[in-house]
Amino acid sequence: MPRVVVDVMPKPEILDPQGKAVLGALPRLGFDGVTDVRQGKRFELVVEGEADGTVSEAVLADVTRMAETLLSNPVIENFAVRVEQDA
Amino acid sequence: MPRVVVDVMPKPEILDPQGKAVLGALPRLGFDGVTDVRQGKRFELVVEGEADGTVSEAVLADVTRMAETLLSNPVIENFAVRVEQDA
Repeated sequence: MPRVVVDVMPKPEILDPQGKAVLGALPRLGFDGVTDVRQGKRFELVVEGEADGTVSEAVLADVTRMAETLLSNPVIENFAVRVEQDA
Repeated sequence: MPRVVVDVMPKPEILDPQGKAVLGALPRLGFDGVTDVRQGKRFELVVEGEADGTVSEAVLADVTRMAETLLSNPVIENFAVRVEQDA
């Protein structure tokens, strides 16, 4: 069964307190060299695929609508949909 | 500045209540064809890169240690680190 990944990230202009908290903690743990951190959500959806294991355009369109209506808040978040082949 | 992405997902054997909640909501919104949903976290770290824009092995090793100690809970979560070229 193919897997579709939906990555949801806060829009660049939106303050990301979780990311800032991680960024602030890194030096205390002895890590440097990181100039910004943003935290978002990652969804892995197992969908019904075609016979050859690919994902049809219709299913991808469905997942995009799921991302718009349920998985993200389009006012403050961006999302990206992609098919992930099993490693 | 190159970006390193850390994807943190619950281990397969661990119950994922958030994923189950999303899975349960999909039919009510008229979506079918999704057999499983798992929800995790996605971190985007902006790091100091080499002159040619690539990320050194040392920085990747650092980010892996950040993922182990701060960004994930290795007891219940898996993580994956990868460099993401700006689209």
